[in-house]
Amino acid sequence: MSKHILVTNDDGVLAPGLLALTRAMRKFGKVTILAPDRNWSGSGHVKTLDRALRVREFHLEDGTQAFGSDGAPSDCVALATLGYFKEPIDLVVSGINVGANLGHDVTYSGTVTAAMEAVIAGIPGIAFSLEVPEGYVGQIDFEPAAYAAGITVQNMLSNGLPTETLLNVNVPFLKQEELRGFRVTRQGLRVYHSRLDERIDPRGRPYYWIGGDAPTGVAELGTDVGALSEGYVSVTPLQLDLTAYRALSDINTWEWHETFLSEVSLPAASVLTADK
Amino acid sequence: MSKHILVTNDDGVLAPGLLALTRAMRKFGKVTILAPDRNWSGSGHVKTLDRALRVREFHLEDGTQAFGSDGAPSDCVALATLGYFKEPIDLVVSGINVGANLGHDVTYSGTVTAAMEAVIAGIPGIAFSLEVPEGYVGQIDFEPAAYAAGITVQNMLSNGLPTETLLNVNVPFLKQEELRGFRVTRQGLRVYHSRLDERIDPRGRPYYWIGGDAPTGVAELGTDVGALSEGYVSVTPLQLDLTAYRALSDINTWEWHETFLSEVSLPAASVLTADK
Repeated sequence: MSKHILVTNDDGVLAPGLLALTRAMRKFGKVTILAPDRNWSGSGHVKTLDRALRVREFHLEDGTQAFGSDGAPSDCVALATLGYFKEPIDLVVSGINVGANLGHDVTYSGTVTAAMEAVIAGIPGIAFSLEVPEGYVGQIDFEPAAYAAGITVQNMLSNGLPTETLLNVNVPFLKQEELRGFRVTRQGLRVYHSRLDERIDPRGRPYYWIGGDAPTGVAELGTDVGALSEGYVSVTPLQLDLTAYRALSDINTWEWHETFLSEVSLPAASVLTADK
Repeated sequence: MSKHILVTNDDGVLAPGLLALTRAMRKFGKVTILAPDRNWSGSGHVKTLDRALRVREFHLEDGTQAFGSDGAPSDCVALATLGYFKEPIDLVVSGINVGANLGHDVTYSGTVTAAMEAVIAGIPGIAFSLEVPEGYVGQIDFEPAAYAAGITVQNMLSNGLPTETLLNVNVPFLKQEELRGFRVTRQGLRVYHSRLDERIDPRGRPYYWIGGDAPTGVAELGTDVGALSEGYVSVTPLQLDLTAYRALSDINTWEWHETFLSEVSLPAASVLTADK
Protein backbone atom coordinates (compact mmCIF):
# COMPACT_ATOMS: atom_id res chain seq x y z
CA MET A 1 0.00 0.00 0.00
CA SER A 2 1.14 3.48 -0.81
CA LYS A 3 2.15 5.55 2.21
CA HIS A 4 1.82 9.20 3.17
CA ILE A 5 5.26 10.31 4.28
CA LEU A 6 6.07 13.58 6.03
CA VAL A 7 9.56 14.94 5.37
CA THR A 8 11.01 17.48 7.79
CA ASN A 9 14.47 18.57 8.96
CA ASP A 10 16.26 21.05 11.20
CA ASP A 11 18.43 22.75 8.59
CA GLY A 12 15.41 24.55 7.12
CA VAL A 13 12.94 23.72 4.37
CA LEU A 14 15.21 24.91 1.55
CA ALA A 15 18.25 22.84 2.63
CA PRO A 16 19.44 20.51 -0.16
CA GLY A 17 19.49 17.50 2.20
CA LEU A 18 15.71 17.75 2.52
CA LEU A 19 15.24 17.66 -1.24
CA ALA A 20 17.50 14.59 -1.53
CA LEU A 21 15.48 12.80 1.17
CA THR A 22 12.21 13.84 -0.50
CA ARG A 23 13.31 12.30 -3.79
CA ALA A 24 14.30 9.05 -2.07
CA MET A 25 10.87 8.81 -0.39
CA ARG A 26 8.74 9.24 -3.54
CA LYS A 27 8.88 5.54 -4.44
CA PHE A 28 7.03 4.70 -1.22
CA GLY A 29 3.98 6.88 -1.78
CA LYS A 30 2.86 10.48 -1.36
CA VAL A 31 5.41 12.85 0.13
CA THR A 32 4.42 15.98 2.06
CA ILE A 33 7.00 18.49 3.29
CA LEU A 34 6.67 20.65 6.40
CA ALA A 35 9.92 21.89 7.88
CA PRO A 36 11.21 24.96 9.73
CA ASP A 37 11.52 28.12 7.62
CA ARG A 38 15.02 28.67 9.06
CA ASN A 39 17.90 26.67 10.55
CA TRP A 40 17.02 25.15 13.96
CA SER A 41 20.16 23.10 14.63
CA GLY A 42 20.89 22.25 18.26
CA SER A 43 17.43 23.36 19.28
CA GLY A 44 16.26 20.23 21.10
CA HIS A 45 12.80 18.81 21.60
CA VAL A 46 10.49 21.80 21.49
CA LYS A 47 6.75 22.10 22.03
CA THR A 48 5.78 25.69 21.28
CA LEU A 49 2.80 26.54 23.48
CA ASP A 50 3.44 30.22 24.27
CA ARG A 51 2.96 31.56 20.76
CA ALA A 52 1.04 30.65 17.63
CA LEU A 53 2.74 29.13 14.59
CA ARG A 54 2.61 30.34 11.00
CA VAL A 55 2.88 28.15 7.93
CA ARG A 56 3.98 29.46 4.50
CA GLU A 57 4.28 27.78 1.13
CA PHE A 58 7.72 27.30 -0.42
CA HIS A 59 9.02 25.71 -3.59
CA LEU A 60 12.15 23.60 -3.57
CA GLU A 61 14.87 23.88 -6.20
CA ASP A 62 13.12 21.37 -8.49
CA GLY A 63 9.73 23.06 -8.08
CA THR A 64 8.35 20.65 -5.45
CA GLN A 65 5.73 22.27 -3.21
CA ALA A 66 6.74 22.44 0.43
CA PHE A 67 5.54 24.13 3.62
CA GLY A 68 7.68 26.03 6.07
CA SER A 69 6.73 26.94 9.62
CA ASP A 70 8.27 29.32 12.14
CA GLY A 71 8.27 26.52 14.71
CA ALA A 72 10.93 23.97 15.59
CA PRO A 73 11.26 20.63 13.74
CA SER A 74 9.18 18.92 16.45
CA ASP A 75 6.53 21.65 16.09
CA CYS A 76 6.37 20.90 12.36
CA VAL A 77 5.72 17.25 13.17
CA ALA A 78 3.10 18.26 15.75
CA LEU A 79 1.33 20.50 13.20
CA ALA A 80 1.26 17.65 10.68
CA THR A 81 0.20 14.89 13.07
CA LEU A 82 -2.46 17.09 14.71
CA GLY A 83 -4.17 17.61 11.38
CA TYR A 84 -2.64 20.48 9.42
CA PHE A 85 -2.83 18.17 6.42
CA LYS A 86 -6.09 16.37 5.76
CA GLU A 87 -4.54 12.98 4.99
CA PRO A 88 -3.13 11.11 7.99
CA ILE A 89 0.66 10.70 8.11
CA ASP A 90 2.02 7.12 8.04
CA LEU A 91 5.71 7.84 8.52
CA VAL A 92 7.88 10.82 9.47
CA VAL A 93 11.42 11.09 8.10
CA SER A 94 13.75 13.86 9.13
CA GLY A 95 16.92 15.09 7.42
CA ILE A 96 19.18 14.59 5.66
CA ASN A 97 21.04 16.58 8.29
CA VAL A 98 24.39 18.18 7.52
CA GLY A 99 26.51 16.62 10.26
CA ALA A 100 26.23 13.34 12.12
CA ASN A 101 23.98 12.99 15.19
CA LEU A 102 25.84 10.53 17.38
CA GLY A 103 26.01 9.70 21.07
CA HIS A 104 24.71 12.48 23.30
CA ASP A 105 23.77 14.57 20.26
CA VAL A 106 20.40 12.85 20.13
CA THR A 107 18.58 14.97 22.73
CA TYR A 108 19.96 18.25 21.32
CA SER A 109 19.30 17.37 17.69
CA GLY A 110 16.31 18.87 15.92
CA THR A 111 16.63 16.09 13.33
CA VAL A 112 16.30 13.36 15.96
CA THR A 113 13.73 15.11 18.16
CA ALA A 114 11.46 15.52 15.11
CA ALA A 115 11.45 11.71 14.85
CA MET A 116 10.80 11.50 18.61
CA GLU A 117 7.77 13.75 18.20
CA ALA A 118 6.41 11.38 15.54
CA VAL A 119 6.80 8.39 17.84
CA ILE A 120 5.03 10.23 20.68
CA ALA A 121 2.17 10.79 18.22
CA GLY A 122 2.13 7.05 17.49
CA ILE A 123 3.73 7.30 14.05
CA PRO A 124 7.06 5.71 13.05
CA GLY A 125 9.91 8.24 12.89
CA ILE A 126 13.37 7.98 11.34
CA ALA A 127 16.18 10.56 11.49
CA PHE A 128 18.86 10.68 8.79
CA SER A 129 22.16 12.51 9.17
CA LEU A 130 25.25 12.71 7.01
CA GLU A 131 28.66 12.98 8.62
CA VAL A 132 30.46 15.99 7.17
CA PRO A 133 34.14 16.46 8.04
CA GLU A 134 34.99 19.51 10.17
CA GLY A 135 36.00 22.36 7.90
CA TYR A 136 34.66 20.78 4.68
CA VAL A 137 33.63 23.54 2.30
CA GLY A 138 32.82 21.85 -1.03
CA GLN A 139 29.50 20.76 -2.48
CA ILE A 140 27.91 18.00 -0.38
CA ASP A 141 26.74 14.88 -2.21
CA PHE A 142 23.59 13.67 -0.43
CA GLU A 143 22.99 10.76 -2.82
CA PRO A 144 24.74 8.04 -0.78
CA ALA A 145 22.72 9.08 2.29
CA ALA A 146 19.51 9.25 0.24
CA TYR A 147 20.24 5.73 -1.00
CA ALA A 148 20.73 4.50 2.57
CA ALA A 149 17.48 6.25 3.54
CA GLY A 150 15.60 4.35 0.82
CA ILE A 151 16.90 1.00 2.07
CA THR A 152 16.11 1.86 5.68
CA VAL A 153 12.56 2.96 4.93
CA GLN A 154 11.87 -0.06 2.74
CA ASN A 155 13.07 -2.28 5.58
CA MET A 156 11.02 -0.41 8.13
CA LEU A 157 7.86 -0.62 6.00
CA SER A 158 8.37 -4.37 5.56
CA ASN A 159 9.15 -5.15 9.19
CA GLY A 160 7.55 -2.40 11.26
CA LEU A 161 9.10 -0.64 14.22
CA PRO A 162 8.44 -1.60 17.85
CA THR A 163 6.21 0.99 19.58
CA GLU A 164 7.97 3.85 21.37
CA THR A 165 11.01 3.32 19.14
CA LEU A 166 12.58 5.53 16.50
CA LEU A 167 15.58 4.99 14.27
CA ASN A 168 18.60 7.27 14.22
CA VAL A 169 20.51 6.67 10.98
CA ASN A 170 23.94 8.16 10.32
CA VAL A 171 25.81 7.91 7.03
CA PRO A 172 29.58 8.29 6.67
CA PHE A 173 31.03 10.84 4.25
CA LEU A 174 31.86 8.35 1.49
CA LYS A 175 30.97 7.74 -2.14
CA GLN A 176 28.08 5.30 -2.58
CA GLU A 177 30.37 2.51 -3.83
CA GLU A 178 32.64 3.03 -0.81
CA LEU A 179 29.87 2.47 1.75
CA ARG A 180 30.63 -0.84 3.46
CA GLY A 181 27.00 -1.58 4.37
CA PHE A 182 24.82 -1.17 7.45
CA ARG A 183 25.45 -1.79 11.13
CA VAL A 184 22.67 -1.93 13.73
CA THR A 185 24.31 -0.14 16.64
CA ARG A 186 23.87 1.23 20.12
CA GLN A 187 24.30 4.91 20.97
CA GLY A 188 27.98 5.67 21.47
CA LEU A 189 29.80 8.33 23.42
CA ARG A 190 30.34 11.82 22.13
CA VAL A 191 33.28 13.81 23.43
CA TYR A 192 32.51 17.52 23.46
CA HIS A 193 35.30 20.06 23.31
CA SER A 194 33.21 23.12 24.15
CA ARG A 195 34.96 26.14 25.60
CA LEU A 196 33.62 29.41 26.90
CA ASP A 197 34.79 32.23 24.67
CA GLU A 198 34.41 35.68 26.25
CA ARG A 199 34.35 38.76 24.01
CA ILE A 200 33.87 42.43 24.82
CA ASP A 201 31.33 44.46 22.85
CA PRO A 202 32.04 48.01 21.59
CA ARG A 203 30.42 49.34 24.76
CA GLY A 204 32.78 47.44 27.03
CA ARG A 205 30.30 44.76 28.12
CA PRO A 206 31.16 41.06 28.00
CA TYR A 207 29.30 38.43 26.00
CA TYR A 208 29.92 34.70 25.70
CA TRP A 209 30.12 32.22 22.87
CA ILE A 210 29.95 28.50 23.47
CA GLY A 211 33.02 27.82 21.35
CA GLY A 212 35.72 25.19 21.08
CA ASP A 213 36.44 22.44 18.57
CA ALA A 214 33.76 20.23 17.01
CA PRO A 215 32.80 17.19 19.09
CA THR A 216 34.60 13.91 18.50
CA GLY A 217 33.54 10.46 19.72
CA VAL A 218 34.70 7.18 21.17
CA ALA A 219 34.90 4.82 18.17
CA GLU A 220 33.88 1.73 20.14
CA LEU A 221 32.79 -1.47 18.40
CA GLY A 222 29.00 -1.82 18.27
CA THR A 223 28.30 1.89 18.55
CA ASP A 224 27.14 4.51 16.04
CA VAL A 225 30.49 6.30 16.34
CA GLY A 226 32.38 3.06 15.76
CA ALA A 227 30.32 2.03 12.72
CA LEU A 228 30.77 5.40 11.02
CA SER A 229 34.51 5.38 11.64
CA GLU A 230 34.70 2.06 9.75
CA GLY A 231 32.65 3.23 6.77
CA TYR A 232 29.29 1.69 7.73
CA VAL A 233 25.89 3.35 7.91
CA SER A 234 24.79 3.17 11.56
CA VAL A 235 21.17 2.36 12.39
CA THR A 236 20.48 2.98 16.09
CA PRO A 237 17.05 2.20 17.52
CA LEU A 238 16.24 4.75 20.24
CA GLN A 239 13.52 4.60 22.86
CA LEU A 240 11.62 7.31 24.68
CA ASP A 241 11.86 5.53 28.03
CA LEU A 242 15.01 7.04 29.54
CA THR A 243 14.74 5.14 32.84
CA ALA A 244 18.18 4.05 34.07
CA TYR A 245 16.88 0.58 34.97
CA ARG A 246 20.26 -0.61 36.24
CA ALA A 247 20.33 2.24 38.77
CA LEU A 248 16.87 1.52 40.24
CA SER A 249 17.84 -1.08 42.84
CA ASP A 250 20.81 0.94 44.12
CA ILE A 251 18.80 4.11 44.53
CA ASN A 252 16.11 2.08 46.24
CA THR A 253 18.59 1.31 49.03
CA TRP A 254 19.09 5.02 49.79
CA GLU A 255 17.71 6.40 53.05
CA TRP A 256 14.19 7.16 51.93
CA HIS A 257 12.48 5.87 55.10
CA GLU A 258 10.43 8.05 57.39
CA THR A 259 12.93 8.50 60.26
CA PHE A 260 15.34 9.99 57.76
CA LEU A 261 12.91 12.81 57.12
CA SER A 262 13.65 14.44 60.51
CA GLU A 263 17.43 14.33 60.02
CA VAL A 264 17.34 16.74 57.15
CA SER A 265 16.80 19.72 59.46
CA LEU A 266 19.93 18.99 61.54
CA PRO A 267 22.61 21.71 61.48
CA ALA A 268 24.75 21.75 58.35
CA ALA A 269 27.84 20.29 60.02
CA SER A 270 26.20 17.03 61.07
CA VAL A 271 24.32 16.65 57.83
CA LEU A 272 27.48 16.96 55.84
CA THR A 273 29.55 14.42 57.76
CA ALA A 274 27.84 11.77 55.65
CA ASP A 275 29.70 13.06 52.62
CA LYS A 276 33.45 12.43 52.91
CA MET B 1 32.86 18.66 52.63
CA SER B 2 30.96 21.73 51.60
CA LYS B 3 29.74 21.67 48.00
CA HIS B 4 29.36 24.27 45.28
CA ILE B 5 25.82 23.90 43.96
CA LEU B 6 24.45 25.53 40.83
CA VAL B 7 20.72 26.26 40.89
CA THR B 8 18.93 26.81 37.60
CA ASN B 9 15.39 26.38 36.24
CA ASP B 10 13.24 26.90 33.16
CA ASP B 11 10.61 29.21 34.64
CA GLY B 12 13.09 32.10 34.79
CA VAL B 13 15.52 33.34 37.43
CA LEU B 14 12.87 35.32 39.36
CA ALA B 15 10.40 32.41 39.67
CA PRO B 16 9.57 31.64 43.33
CA GLY B 17 10.30 27.92 42.87
CA LEU B 18 13.96 28.76 42.24
CA LEU B 19 14.20 30.74 45.48
CA ALA B 20 12.63 27.85 47.44
CA LEU B 21 15.15 25.41 45.94
CA THR B 22 18.03 27.81 46.64
CA ARG B 23 17.07 28.01 50.32
CA ALA B 24 16.89 24.21 50.59
CA MET B 25 20.37 23.88 49.05
CA ARG B 26 22.19 26.30 51.41
CA LYS B 27 22.77 23.68 54.10
CA PHE B 28 24.94 21.72 51.66
CA GLY B 29 27.43 24.46 50.84
CA LYS B 30 27.79 27.45 48.55
CA VAL B 31 24.89 28.12 46.19
CA THR B 32 25.31 29.93 42.89
CA ILE B 33 22.35 30.83 40.69
CA LEU B 34 22.40 31.08 36.89
CA ALA B 35 19.05 30.65 35.17
CA PRO B 36 17.26 31.99 32.10
CA ASP B 37 16.16 35.62 32.30
CA ARG B 38 12.73 34.59 30.97
CA ASN B 39 10.44 31.54 30.91
CA TRP B 40 11.83 28.71 28.74
CA SER B 41 9.23 25.99 29.40
CA GLY B 42 8.92 23.27 26.78
CA SER B 43 12.10 24.38 25.12
CA GLY B 44 14.02 21.10 25.12
CA HIS B 45 17.73 20.41 25.22
CA VAL B 46 19.34 23.44 23.62
CA LYS B 47 22.96 24.20 22.79
CA THR B 48 23.10 27.77 21.53
CA LEU B 49 25.95 27.98 19.03
CA ASP B 50 24.61 30.48 16.50
CA ARG B 51 24.59 33.51 18.78
CA ALA B 52 26.46 34.78 21.81
CA LEU B 53 24.93 34.72 25.30
CA ARG B 54 24.60 37.61 27.73
CA VAL B 55 24.60 37.32 31.51
CA ARG B 56 23.05 39.94 33.82
CA GLU B 57 22.91 40.23 37.60
CA PHE B 58 19.57 39.89 39.37
CA HIS B 59 18.44 39.94 42.98
CA LEU B 60 15.83 37.51 44.24
CA GLU B 61 12.96 38.54 46.50
CA ASP B 62 15.08 37.99 49.65
CA GLY B 63 18.04 39.91 48.24
CA THR B 64 20.05 36.83 47.13
CA GLN B 65 22.41 37.58 44.23
CA ALA B 66 21.59 35.63 41.08
CA PHE B 67 22.61 35.65 37.42
CA GLY B 68 20.25 35.52 34.47
CA SER B 69 21.21 34.62 30.91
CA ASP B 70 19.36 34.98 27.62
CA GLY B 71 20.10 31.32 26.87
CA ALA B 72 18.10 28.18 27.58
CA PRO B 73 18.37 26.30 30.90
CA SER B 74 20.92 23.91 29.34
CA ASP B 75 22.91 26.94 28.09
CA CYS B 76 23.00 28.27 31.66
CA VAL B 77 24.45 24.95 32.81
CA ALA B 78 26.96 25.03 29.92
CA LEU B 79 28.06 28.57 30.85
CA ALA B 80 28.55 27.52 34.47
CA THR B 81 30.33 24.23 33.80
CA LEU B 82 32.55 25.78 31.10
CA GLY B 83 33.92 28.28 33.58
CA TYR B 84 31.71 31.36 33.86
CA PHE B 85 32.19 31.03 37.61
CA LYS B 86 35.72 30.58 38.90
CA GLU B 87 34.87 27.83 41.42
CA PRO B 88 34.07 24.42 39.89
CA ILE B 89 30.48 23.21 40.21
CA ASP B 90 29.90 19.99 42.21
CA LEU B 91 26.17 19.56 41.64
CA VAL B 92 23.48 21.09 39.41
CA VAL B 93 19.90 21.26 40.66
CA SER B 94 17.08 22.54 38.49
CA GLY B 95 13.63 23.75 39.51
CA ILE B 96 11.42 23.76 41.39
CA ASN B 97 9.34 23.68 38.22
CA VAL B 98 5.69 24.69 38.25
CA GLY B 99 4.11 21.54 36.84
CA ALA B 100 5.20 17.91 36.93
CA ASN B 101 7.66 16.51 34.35
CA LEU B 102 6.50 12.95 33.88
CA GLY B 103 6.73 10.31 31.17
CA HIS B 104 7.55 11.74 27.75
CA ASP B 105 7.84 15.24 29.21
CA VAL B 106 11.48 14.60 30.01
CA THR B 107 12.97 15.40 26.60
CA TYR B 108 10.83 18.56 26.19
CA SER B 109 11.45 19.84 29.69
CA GLY B 110 13.94 22.65 30.25
CA THR B 111 14.06 21.60 33.91
CA VAL B 112 15.12 18.05 33.07
CA THR B 113 17.39 18.91 30.12
CA ALA B 114 19.33 21.31 32.40
CA ALA B 115 20.13 18.29 34.58
CA MET B 116 21.04 16.29 31.42
CA GLU B 117 23.50 19.02 30.44
CA ALA B 118 25.16 18.72 33.86
CA VAL B 119 25.55 14.97 33.46
CA ILE B 120 27.06 15.39 29.97
CA ALA B 121 29.58 17.75 31.62
CA GLY B 122 30.37 15.01 34.16
CA ILE B 123 28.56 16.68 37.09
CA PRO B 124 25.57 15.17 38.95
CA GLY B 125 22.25 16.74 37.95
CA ILE B 126 18.84 16.60 39.60
CA ALA B 127 15.56 18.07 38.32
CA PHE B 128 12.75 19.00 40.72
CA SER B 129 9.17 19.62 39.64
CA LEU B 130 5.98 20.26 41.57
CA GLU B 131 2.71 18.91 40.24
CA VAL B 132 0.22 21.78 40.05
CA PRO B 133 -3.42 20.92 39.28
CA GLU B 134 -4.76 22.16 35.94
CA GLY B 135 -6.47 25.50 36.45
CA TYR B 136 -5.05 26.14 39.94
CA VAL B 137 -4.77 29.88 40.50
CA GLY B 138 -3.83 30.36 44.18
CA GLN B 139 -0.42 30.92 45.77
CA ILE B 140 1.82 27.89 45.30
CA ASP B 141 3.51 26.49 48.41
CA PHE B 142 6.95 25.23 47.33
CA GLU B 143 8.01 24.19 50.85
CA PRO B 144 7.00 20.49 50.61
CA ALA B 145 8.93 20.21 47.34
CA ALA B 146 11.91 22.10 48.81
CA TYR B 147 11.86 19.66 51.73
CA ALA B 148 11.85 16.69 49.35
CA ALA B 149 14.71 18.33 47.42
CA GLY B 150 16.77 18.56 50.60
CA ILE B 151 16.29 14.87 51.36
CA THR B 152 17.11 13.87 47.79
CA VAL B 153 20.30 15.92 47.64
CA GLN B 154 21.46 14.70 51.04
CA ASN B 155 20.94 11.14 49.83
CA MET B 156 22.71 11.80 46.57
CA LEU B 157 25.70 13.41 48.30
CA SER B 158 25.97 10.42 50.65
CA ASN B 159 25.60 7.74 48.00
CA GLY B 160 26.71 9.28 44.72
CA LEU B 161 25.01 8.87 41.36
CA PRO B 162 26.09 6.34 38.71
CA THR B 163 27.80 8.06 35.76
CA GLU B 164 25.58 9.13 32.86
CA THR B 165 22.60 9.20 35.22
CA LEU B 166 20.44 12.08 36.42
CA LEU B 167 17.49 12.14 38.79
CA ASN B 168 14.06 13.41 37.84
CA VAL B 169 12.13 14.19 41.02
CA ASN B 170 8.42 15.03 41.02
CA VAL B 171 6.45 16.14 44.07
CA PRO B 172 2.67 15.83 44.40
CA PHE B 173 0.57 18.89 45.24
CA LEU B 174 0.12 18.09 48.94
CA LYS B 175 0.89 19.63 52.30
CA GLN B 176 4.22 18.45 53.76
CA GLU B 177 2.50 16.30 56.39
CA GLU B 178 0.34 14.69 53.71
CA LEU B 179 3.33 13.49 51.63
CA ARG B 180 3.39 9.70 51.93
CA GLY B 181 7.13 9.39 51.31
CA PHE B 182 9.37 8.60 48.35
CA ARG B 183 9.12 6.05 45.56
CA VAL B 184 12.00 5.19 43.25
CA THR B 185 10.21 4.80 39.93
CA ARG B 186 10.56 4.23 36.23
CA GLN B 187 9.41 6.75 33.63
CA GLY B 188 5.69 6.34 33.03
CA LEU B 189 3.46 7.15 30.09
CA ARG B 190 2.13 10.61 29.42
CA VAL B 191 -1.09 10.97 27.46
CA TYR B 192 -1.12 14.18 25.48
CA HIS B 193 -4.38 15.80 24.45
CA SER B 194 -2.94 18.34 22.04
CA ARG B 195 -5.20 19.72 19.36
CA LEU B 196 -4.52 22.05 16.48
CA ASP B 197 -6.38 25.30 17.01
CA GLU B 198 -6.64 27.43 13.86
CA ARG B 199 -7.37 31.15 14.17
CA ILE B 200 -7.61 33.88 11.56
CA ASP B 201 -5.68 37.12 12.04
CA PRO B 202 -7.18 40.58 11.32
CA ARG B 203 -5.70 40.39 7.81
CA GLY B 204 -7.46 37.13 7.03
CA ARG B 205 -4.41 34.86 7.32
CA PRO B 206 -4.50 31.67 9.39
CA TYR B 207 -2.25 30.93 12.34
CA TYR B 208 -2.09 27.85 14.56
CA TRP B 209 -1.93 27.21 18.27
CA ILE B 210 -0.93 23.84 19.66
CA GLY B 211 -3.93 23.72 22.00
CA GLY B 212 -6.01 21.11 23.75
CA ASP B 213 -6.28 19.97 27.35
CA ALA B 214 -3.30 19.50 29.67
CA PRO B 215 -1.60 16.10 29.41
CA THR B 216 -2.69 13.31 31.70
CA GLY B 217 -0.88 10.05 32.37
CA VAL B 218 -1.22 6.32 32.90
CA ALA B 219 -1.08 5.86 36.69
CA GLU B 220 0.68 2.51 36.55
CA LEU B 221 2.33 0.98 39.63
CA GLY B 222 6.08 1.56 39.71
CA THR B 223 6.00 4.65 37.49
CA ASP B 224 6.42 8.35 38.22
CA VAL B 225 2.79 8.99 37.23
CA GLY B 226 1.59 6.19 39.52
CA ALA B 227 3.64 7.35 42.53
CA LEU B 228 2.39 10.93 42.26
CA SER B 229 -1.22 9.81 41.97
CA GLU B 230 -0.82 7.99 45.30
CA GLY B 231 0.76 10.93 47.12
CA TYR B 232 4.41 9.87 46.89
CA VAL B 233 7.39 11.88 45.68
CA SER B 234 8.73 10.07 42.59
CA VAL B 235 12.49 9.75 42.08
CA THR B 236 13.25 8.50 38.56
CA PRO B 237 16.85 7.84 37.54
CA LEU B 238 17.26 8.70 33.85
CA GLN B 239 20.10 7.82 31.51
CA LEU B 240 21.48 9.52 28.46
CA ASP B 241 21.83 6.27 26.54
CA LEU B 242 18.53 6.07 24.65
CA THR B 243 19.40 2.85 22.79
CA ALA B 244 16.35 0.58 22.51
CA TYR B 245 18.40 -2.49 23.46
CA ARG B 246 15.45 -4.84 23.20
CA ALA B 247 14.92 -3.81 19.57
CA LEU B 248 18.53 -4.43 18.48
CA SER B 249 18.29 -8.14 17.68
CA ASP B 250 15.04 -7.75 15.73
CA ILE B 251 16.34 -4.91 13.61
CA ASN B 252 19.52 -6.90 13.04
CA THR B 253 17.42 -9.51 11.21
CA TRP B 254 16.19 -6.93 8.70
CA GLU B 255 17.43 -7.19 5.12
CA TRP B 256 20.64 -5.20 5.44
CA HIS B 257 22.76 -7.54 3.29
CA GLU B 258 24.40 -6.50 0.05
CA THR B 259 22.03 -8.17 -2.46
CA PHE B 260 19.21 -6.17 -0.95
CA LEU B 261 20.91 -2.97 -2.01
CA SER B 262 20.06 -3.54 -5.68
CA GLU B 263 16.39 -4.21 -4.98
CA VAL B 264 15.76 -0.71 -3.78
CA SER B 265 15.75 0.66 -7.32
CA LEU B 266 12.99 -1.70 -8.51
CA PRO B 267 9.78 -0.02 -9.69
CA ALA B 268 7.52 1.17 -6.89
CA ALA B 269 4.93 -1.60 -7.35
CA SER B 270 7.32 -4.48 -6.64
CA VAL B 271 9.01 -2.68 -3.79
CA LEU B 272 5.74 -2.04 -2.08
CA THR B 273 4.34 -5.57 -2.23
CA ALA B 274 6.44 -6.32 0.84
CA ASP B 275 4.18 -4.08 2.85
CA LYS B 276 0.65 -5.51 3.17
